[in-house]
Amino acid sequence: MAKSTFEYVKTFELDDSLLPNTWIVVRIDGKCFHKFADDHNFTKPNDERALKLMNYAAFHVVKEFNELLVAYGQSDEYSFIFKKNCQLYNRRQSKLLTTINSKFTASYVYYWDMFFKGERLKYPPTFDGRIVLYPTEENIIDYLKWRQADVHINNLYNTTFWTLILKGNLSPTQAEKRLCGTVSADKNEILFKEFNMNYNKEPEIFKRGTVLLRKSVSKENSGKPSAVIVDIHDDMLKEKFWHKHSYLFKNSKEIVLHEGSMTDIINEQLS
Amino acid sequence: MAKSTFEYVKTFELDDSLLPNTWIVVRIDGKCFHKFADDHNFTKPNDERALKLMNYAAFHVVKEFNELLVAYGQSDEYSFIFKKNCQLYNRRQSKLLTTINSKFTASYVYYWDMFFKGERLKYPPTFDGRIVLYPTEENIIDYLKWRQADVHINNLYNTTFWTLILKGNLSPTQAEKRLCGTVSADKNEILFKEFNMNYNKEPEIFKRGTVLLRKSVSKENSGKPSAVIVDIHDDMLKEKFWHKHSYLFKNSKEIVLHEGSMTDIINEQLS
Amino acid sequence: MAKSTFEYVKTFELDDSLLPNTWIVVRIDGKCFHKFADDHNFTKPNDERALKLMNYAAFHVVKEFNELLVAYGQSDEYSFIFKKNCQLYNRRQSKLLTTINSKFTASYVYYWDMFFKGERLKYPPTFDGRIVLYPTEENIIDYLKWRQADVHINNLYNTTFWTLILKGNLSPTQAEKRLCGTVSADKNEILFKEFNMNYNKEPEIFKRGTVLLRKSVSKENSGKPSAVIVDIHDDMLKEKFWHKHSYLFKNSKEIVLHEGSMTDIINEQLS
Amino acid sequence: MAKSTFEYVKTFELDDSLLPNTWIVVRIDGKCFHKFADDHNFTKPNDERALKLMNYAAFHVVKEFNELLVAYGQSDEYSFIFKKNCQLYNRRQSKLLTTINSKFTASYVYYWDMFFKGERLKYPPTFDGRIVLYPTEENIIDYLKWRQADVHINNLYNTTFWTLILKGNLSPTQAEKRLCGTVSADKNEILFKEFNMNYNKEPEIFKRGTVLLRKSVSKENSGKPSAVIVDIHDDMLKEKFWHKHSYLFKNSKEIVLHEGSMTDIINEQLS
Repeated sequence: MAKSTFEYVKTFELDDSLLPNTWIVVRIDGKCFHKFADDHNFTKPNDERALKLMNYAAFHVVKEFNELLVAYGQSDEYSFIFKKNCQLYNRRQSKLLTTINSKFTASYVYYWDMFFKGERLKYPPTFDGRIVLYPTEENIIDYLKWRQADVHINNLYNTTFWTLILKGNLSPTQAEKRLCGTVSADKNEILFKEFNMNYNKEPEIFKRGTVLLRKSVSKENSGKPSAVIVDIHDDMLKEKFWHKHSYLFKNSKEIVLHEGSMTDIINEQLS
Repeated sequence: MAKSTFEYVKTFELDDSLLPNTWIVVRIDGKCFHKFADDHNFTKPNDERALKLMNYAAFHVVKEFNELLVAYGQSDEYSFIFKKNCQLYNRRQSKLLTTINSKFTASYVYYWDMFFKGERLKYPPTFDGRIVLYPTEENIIDYLKWRQADVHINNLYNTTFWTLILKGNLSPTQAEKRLCGTVSADKNEILFKEFNMNYNKEPEIFKRGTVLLRKSVSKENSGKPSAVIVDIHDDMLKEKFWHKHSYLFKNSKEIVLHEGSMTDIINEQLS
Repeated sequence: MAKSTFEYVKTFELDDSLLPNTWIVVRIDGKCFHKFADDHNFTKPNDERALKLMNYAAFHVVKEFNELLVAYGQSDEYSFIFKKNCQLYNRRQSKLLTTINSKFTASYVYYWDMFFKGERLKYPPTFDGRIVLYPTEENIIDYLKWRQADVHINNLYNTTFWTLILKGNLSPTQAEKRLCGTVSADKNEILFKEFNMNYNKEPEIFKRGTVLLRKSVSKENSGKPSAVIVDIHDDMLKEKFWHKHSYLFKNSKEIVLHEGSMTDIINEQLS
Repeated sequence: MAKSTFEYVKTFELDDSLLPNTWIVVRIDGKCFHKFADDHNFTKPNDERALKLMNYAAFHVVKEFNELLVAYGQSDEYSFIFKKNCQLYNRRQSKLLTTINSKFTASYVYYWDMFFKGERLKYPPTFDGRIVLYPTEENIIDYLKWRQADVHINNLYNTTFWTLILKGNLSPTQAEKRLCGTVSADKNEILFKEFNMNYNKEPEIFKRGTVLLRKSVSKENSGKPSAVIVDIHDDMLKEKFWHKHSYLFKNSKEIVLHEGSMTDIINEQLS
């Protein structure tokens, strides 16, 4: 059983180390999630259970890898950003990509019942993923702004589209026609004038997606601060966010105080 | 909300198309599965439930992608081999790798309860993966022989090691010492002389792993042949196997008759 | 002078090994050679001196690297094909590419005066290059056919175009217009009917480019065969060529007898 | 002559675009230059003609590509650094690498006679090359410091080694033994005490190599400043150099005044 006769095939495995000193983004995306959402009765235009499950799966990914600096999720996608000096798996591309992707997928299936009470998972979902490198702080911040600008545009459209259907009794085709050529202001006005909805008052998780990062919180009893992963819905398009979190991309060990509310994800870590 | 201001970050996504006309192997591997096996009371040295779950998850991967020619699994790893003229996702490496990896992972978690009755999945498992290209039929066959030679060597060792512990009452350290420097014949003799075990009679799934490929079977009632994915445990180190399955790497649409037993996986497809 | 403080920058050099067991094609191409040809009074449509200099430079490349199986040149481009089991420089892409490219360029400049007597080289020419991998014999043969089909199409066009100008007194614009929409037969007819030229009798080096490969020739005096690099202008689009040279892609050490004429390149090796 | 039948082979050419917004270093290196130097009677330990030819060839490369920010040469190697936002050839790796490499090689051969009067070039030399990316200003500066620290270490060693041989009448083996285990201070002392040589007074071009970059100089007659490529031998290991040339890596169009002497390379551009 001369294993060694065949072992030469190992030489076909080529090195895929990533360029050092660059931020590594692993972005994963639900495959055929339009169908998956329909098959599992996702609420339109946003299903809070689905978003929270995404966040919870992502939280478990961030918790496992200290080299992860920040994660950002919206709709059926999540971006995980490694520190630029990350040496995990010697920066081997396939290893980093598949480990994050698999851990996320497994968590999504595993924790399904926690969020979708009464809605059985009918089949295993699939997420694909890719790695992109960014060399400068400006580039990586622009990446996050790009993803968040995307959620804004999509969510305003989807909110108006589904309101026209669900409350305005239009057919999908009619709703699409109605929105054709409209700009943001038009959609805001449709919602406000016709349906008495103020888009600005929509839940932040819908409008802005979710940012996961490490902050410190004070435990109620002890008052001693703990480092935890927080899930926030801040506006990353505002410079204020980056002033406040400027430490993030500085290879610093600084950690700032969480000033927002105590979420389920935070509480789970403190208990 | 000038999305376009940030959209330049998309140009950092580089093309990762794989060389045409080469066999694409996606190999996935359980991460920290020693610990995972312990945490979930896997039988030593082989847990049939675990192997069957691996096969069942892999079966769902093969079922989804017609471009998959053959899959081979052993222990906590599985190799999926795409046809050399596969054009799926334009042969983009990350897309192929993560889709297979994620689909497998999700299926493993999703179908856990089907195989591990009474053994709760304590946490989501992770699989990593990589892609390797092979240009010739000889190389791809040697790849499969390499993986099967590996299972033989490991399984004979593990079977003897655990028999020494479980039936021979040695400690793991004593068993390791006992086996140090032994060759295959020595291990066969230990099993036979000391424990009256004939290694050759061990289950094929343990000794050879599992091959998944498309064959035709006759439905009992109708007699009409159906194309199904079969799970077999043939000896790929023998040339006989490759004569019989020579069509596999010929870009042919040929499909041969399954001559083995009707497994659960086959029956599920016929019902 | 702590060199070691800076030596970390070496880790940014990533491995670029090429997939084993595939044919490596290095194709180099003259940069801005239209202008270069004008600046050096190249004869239109073909300059024999220029083609012979290309061949001679390529001959020196092939001579240096035993791992080179065959080279094929036409116009201002040359393709060098390494054996599929070539291990030169551990198959590092950049090393292979630049070594061939640089050796060719240096030879082109160095041997200029041998071919362009009386025509001074006005400035150093530049060649760019790329590497392409081919996994099968069929692919690598098709690659060579592709390059030779290209020279045929271009040369028939150029020969007719320049004949219309030089002998037919058309302006370039008129000649272009005249040829617009014509097929091969039309061009052959223009040459034959209007200028009494039989395209088939044009020199083979113009119509077919040049193949460089190792063959054996008998020395006149001794009769003992020597292995030499021969420059031939055979038709690689005919299957006959591949039957005769079937050994080329077989990893064989076979070497066939050269049956053509004794060229300057051959004679130089025998003297 | 169905060219299209074979044209599919073009799909085997894979995209090799380099990550945007990173500094591209093309480093070229003389192949077997120990032998080449011996064959052409290079003066030991440094041949000024050879260094000046390297600089002159590099000057012609920098002159051709505005996207080149700075070049640095020492011994038989030269590094060319492209602006980080360089879009030349769409940042295709092979194209950038071979064009620079070929242009340099051709220039080296072409201008040989200008520097090596009376010393015939016996055969065409070869340079290999590679591309390395650096994401930050600190990295690219450290790269240049690394190469300059290298020349310092090598040149002090070589100067002492060859002085021991040429003036001290040691054999190469004896000189090597003598230097074994010595640090910089020891070598300085050997030169000073035994040979009355002050290493610090050795020519800058030997001790520091040559930096090529664009600066402005005033033409003597007109007084109007011109942008030219200057060849300087500054100490890049000192922070002073980087303060003075801080504009270099800022994507700025700033250009500073040349304060050094008027070299042949500068004068050629002004005439």
